[in-house]
Amino acid sequence: MGSKEIHCTNKLVKTLAMTDNKLPLMVFDVNETLLDMATLKSKINSLLGSNKGFGVWFEMLLHYSLVDNCTSNYHNFTELADATLEMAVKDLKADVTPKERKEALQTIKELSTYDDVPKGLQLLKENGFRLVTLTNSPSATLTAQMQHAKLTEYFEATLSIDTIKKYKPALETYTWATEQLSVNVSDAILVAAHGWDIAGALRAGMQAAFIEREGQSLYPLAPKPQFIGKNLIEVSKSIIAHYS
Amino acid sequence: MGSKEIHCTNKLVKTLAMTDNKLPLMVFDVNETLLDMATLKSKINSLLGSNKGFGVWFEMLLHYSLVDNCTSNYHNFTELADATLEMAVKDLKADVTPKERKEALQTIKELSTYDDVPKGLQLLKENGFRLVTLTNSPSATLTAQMQHAKLTEYFEATLSIDTIKKYKPALETYTWATEQLSVNVSDAILVAAHGWDIAGALRAGMQAAFIEREGQSLYPLAPKPQFIGKNLIEVSKSIIAHYS
Repeated sequence: MGSKEIHCTNKLVKTLAMTDNKLPLMVFDVNETLLDMATLKSKINSLLGSNKGFGVWFEMLLHYSLVDNCTSNYHNFTELADATLEMAVKDLKADVTPKERKEALQTIKELSTYDDVPKGLQLLKENGFRLVTLTNSPSATLTAQMQHAKLTEYFEATLSIDTIKKYKPALETYTWATEQLSVNVSDAILVAAHGWDIAGALRAGMQAAFIEREGQSLYPLAPKPQFIGKNLIEVSKSIIAHYS
Repeated sequence: MGSKEIHCTNKLVKTLAMTDNKLPLMVFDVNETLLDMATLKSKINSLLGSNKGFGVWFEMLLHYSLVDNCTSNYHNFTELADATLEMAVKDLKADVTPKERKEALQTIKELSTYDDVPKGLQLLKENGFRLVTLTNSPSATLTAQMQHAKLTEYFEATLSIDTIKKYKPALETYTWATEQLSVNVSDAILVAAHGWDIAGALRAGMQAAFIEREGQSLYPLAPKPQFIGKNLIEVSKSIIAHYS
């Protein structure tokens, strides 16, 4: 730093020192990490006539995103969601029209944040961290989701894998995201509530923070993330404490 | 053919002509295609205390096999089965010990064939087709499964992806399998009851035959297989008719 900074207030000196200290880039997963899928879950369960319907379909959606990855194929997450919902409808012998499927899936644009999310993001921003998203949803869905949940203002960039047409946890999704922000992959922390996403980020050389949302758990055969907490406030406080 | 064959019986001439005609290599998926997982399903449902338990766990197992694929990782299917069952136990809040998990998973070695399988395989063999397996299960499990189900005699080779350490439907699993038998990939037909397996084989350049087992359906965003039937007898008859 130049001589000018010597005369700054303590607060400014601290902010500048932290910037020099290269605080990690915070890379956020969106669905089930920031946004509570409860309303979509209830819609899909009702459509499929089973209280396990959402679980069956969503795991199938994630599976087929990776079927596309490893067969050098690509369809965006909205197309995949509809195709796998069609398969789940057949599997569960439900009576559902294509129009009803598409209407139910629109609910993904109307999700609310978990209660801890705005405060957790605010804490990170106040402490000088840069925040971005990295999601499997295509950009148009992501933009609608962020606006509806009033999260747009927190993020410097809202990245979707739709740009590179490979789904997380393919390793290149994480390295691509950090390249977009001119940050080394080891200087970024992925924050997610899914074991598979944490596993991919760590294998790509990122750091990772796991939020233990209801029904989620870490992949036992992957390395352990550096930060774990029950919600984003806990996770944010741990990260801030570690870098202060 | 040399002059010797001119004097053969009609039956032998037909067999030799078919061999010259390069009948396709028949490549069989095993679990849920040849072997009925009903006994494992009932064991896992009881362990997890939910009649959807098996479905939740098995889809998670398939998902994480591809998480390994796309993070350049590998654990064999037995390890993956146990790790994802541990995750399913947490998800469904079941009370299960690691020993109970391992004991339940052993049931995979004690599956029976679907009723149509022996006759369907026999029809293909009688008509001069070469039969091999291509499964995600590791070789030791596969050998035990084939012996228990009395299927060993039908197959010229029992291939497992464990040798190349990439799970189906990664494209290289299909090309590798045909290389092992010195057959062009387009001269092989994958027979499977899973949409993702059919999609991978077709994308790799194989032909494919789909068996419409209960609860299974084709992936709507993949090309359509050349052969479809309700069981292996139907599928085998279609293939034999096509090549006769």
